[in-house]
Amino acid sequence: MTDERESYIFPVGTLKNFSAAVFMHFGVPRADAELAAEVLAKSDLRGIDSHGVARLHTYFEMLELGRINPKPKIKIVRAKASVATVDGDNGLGLVVGPKANEIAMEKAEQHGSGWISVCNTNHFGIAGYYVLQALERDLIGWAMTNSTKLVAPLWGAERMLGTNPIAIAFPGYREPPIVIDMATSAVAYGKIEIALRKKEQIPKGWIIDEGGRDTTDPQDMIDGGAQLPLGSEREMGGHKGYALASMVDILCCILSGANWGPFAPPFALRQEIPARSVGKGIGHFFGAMQIDGFIDKDEFKKQIDEWIRVFRNTRPAPGTNGPLIPGDPEREAEAIRSKEGIPLIKPVVDDLLDISRKTGIPLEVK
Amino acid sequence: MTDERESYIFPVGTLKNFSAAVFMHFGVPRADAELAAEVLAKSDLRGIDSHGVARLHTYFEMLELGRINPKPKIKIVRAKASVATVDGDNGLGLVVGPKANEIAMEKAEQHGSGWISVCNTNHFGIAGYYVLQALERDLIGWAMTNSTKLVAPLWGAERMLGTNPIAIAFPGYREPPIVIDMATSAVAYGKIEIALRKKEQIPKGWIIDEGGRDTTDPQDMIDGGAQLPLGSEREMGGHKGYALASMVDILCCILSGANWGPFAPPFALRQEIPARSVGKGIGHFFGAMQIDGFIDKDEFKKQIDEWIRVFRNTRPAPGTNGPLIPGDPEREAEAIRSKEGIPLIKPVVDDLLDISRKTGIPLEVK
Repeated sequence: MTDERESYIFPVGTLKNFSAAVFMHFGVPRADAELAAEVLAKSDLRGIDSHGVARLHTYFEMLELGRINPKPKIKIVRAKASVATVDGDNGLGLVVGPKANEIAMEKAEQHGSGWISVCNTNHFGIAGYYVLQALERDLIGWAMTNSTKLVAPLWGAERMLGTNPIAIAFPGYREPPIVIDMATSAVAYGKIEIALRKKEQIPKGWIIDEGGRDTTDPQDMIDGGAQLPLGSEREMGGHKGYALASMVDILCCILSGANWGPFAPPFALRQEIPARSVGKGIGHFFGAMQIDGFIDKDEFKKQIDEWIRVFRNTRPAPGTNGPLIPGDPEREAEAIRSKEGIPLIKPVVDDLLDISRKTGIPLEVK
Repeated sequence: MTDERESYIFPVGTLKNFSAAVFMHFGVPRADAELAAEVLAKSDLRGIDSHGVARLHTYFEMLELGRINPKPKIKIVRAKASVATVDGDNGLGLVVGPKANEIAMEKAEQHGSGWISVCNTNHFGIAGYYVLQALERDLIGWAMTNSTKLVAPLWGAERMLGTNPIAIAFPGYREPPIVIDMATSAVAYGKIEIALRKKEQIPKGWIIDEGGRDTTDPQDMIDGGAQLPLGSEREMGGHKGYALASMVDILCCILSGANWGPFAPPFALRQEIPARSVGKGIGHFFGAMQIDGFIDKDEFKKQIDEWIRVFRNTRPAPGTNGPLIPGDPEREAEAIRSKEGIPLIKPVVDDLLDISRKTGIPLEVK
């Protein structure tokens, strides 16, 4: 294990069992531990490497320091027929998220739609996981979360918002579903990290430096800079990315009573906990809509199929094969990785081995 | 009246009365005509000149040709407690929209939230109007609509989607509300028109030419080009703007049974009606959420105030006064224009005078 970028292949089951055992090591009940491991594994399967077992070491540290409650009493604190607020009792977001999402789906099946704002929770993995759950029940699913500050509002020079993702999914009939899962920042933080590791410049419009100036040096992000919202600058719609990130922040946090904006507690030990608290934990927002409440379900799904075919047939821009359908890349990754296993780079494997040493939970590396 | 750009000031009441009289001229009942005129005037008041009386001539032409039903029988075709589909019977979107939005708000007051997908409708003015209505009832309002194709999906070389706007608003306590109202394209079509009129180049990333290539010449849009989605290119998140526009398209059209994507009927006589129809009219989507279903209403509004203050205090980027709060520019325009009147450029005044001549409805121009 000498090349940083060399990768090691793990069957998804191995990673799932290892993650679940780590969660149980800290007293997380088996069913919850398996659920949390399932959410992490889904991220690895779908090729979103930054949100899978690459994060297990942080969950491990947070649990070890007692900063996450392994046995939360998750409860509904307020509700009407189609809406509710859930308090996650500082549990793993990987457990609180699926349970709150379940409530949204049940409400959708009963009342046509269900909308759940969640406070007192933690990092919930990929937003895409939750909308895939909704698809299994033929519902339209929505998921959002706030996260540690990384992004400057347009015309600001400092980090004020998380990368605040939005996911939504629509089921197809014979075609695969349309699955949107996008951060509201111009790029994922992981892309800046990759450029740093490769010592490459990044495009103008991804980040600003500590003084709020444009920069193409990824190191400026580490030295107190900030990411830019989707659209980047005013002329290209940077105010729109900022508005979307704000919408996510308010639906997830102000509606539930969680810490919004720059006050979101960090999901990493190296980051400072904000001195000021304006609520409990971070926040999520889940929605589910029953298609049959609007239109015949099969009619909807057949039109989605037709939408997909029409968009796949768009005349391609030069040098491309034409538009993708949202969710294509992740679905293709999942098809490959469920057969061939999950590739992990050496630093991630080292982290897992470190956890293995500290907990005594075995991990086989081939 | 010789300078194209000279502007004429009209009291908002004059424009409202004129618009209402024009709608009534075609048999629109008085209450509906006044409602439609109110929606148009709101756009002018808020400084969104492209969606106010500047469009009256198109409504006039559509009504004159019998392409819009002046006396629609708007009906709920399917419903569950918190959701419904509304058929607008090919009425004015300016009438169908407010009525469908009203149903969403009523459902929110009864069941915590209300979500209405609308088919068989037409251009509904500014999405912002609908969320402002929700604010008056202390609800969180959502509004979306599809529109005539103008935007290429990322990696496509042709128009497939409308500028498909998303609006959402949150009430403040002492601070003014946060009002998001944004097209999912990189820029509003109006900005390309302005550059054309001024014979100026536009930034790369706003449009592509007929061959799908980047261009800075606004004339290329007229000559068969297409707008780009928010984010513009892949590296800057163009796939995210495309995903958002797709989401709006599906919620407004596939969920309701309207014409989606490139099949949306145009709102302009010079544009061709698509040969293929996949539904009825265009589509809207309205949502309303009752804050009290989630959290104490005043607590929510006070936190919104605090959010606004914190974001206003963001350290400013060089050369700026710091971030705005979404809705600031429109609210400032409204404050000025409600006192001083609405400035209209000569081509718009000429259009109104043309309507006046053809209908015999007087319009006083000072």
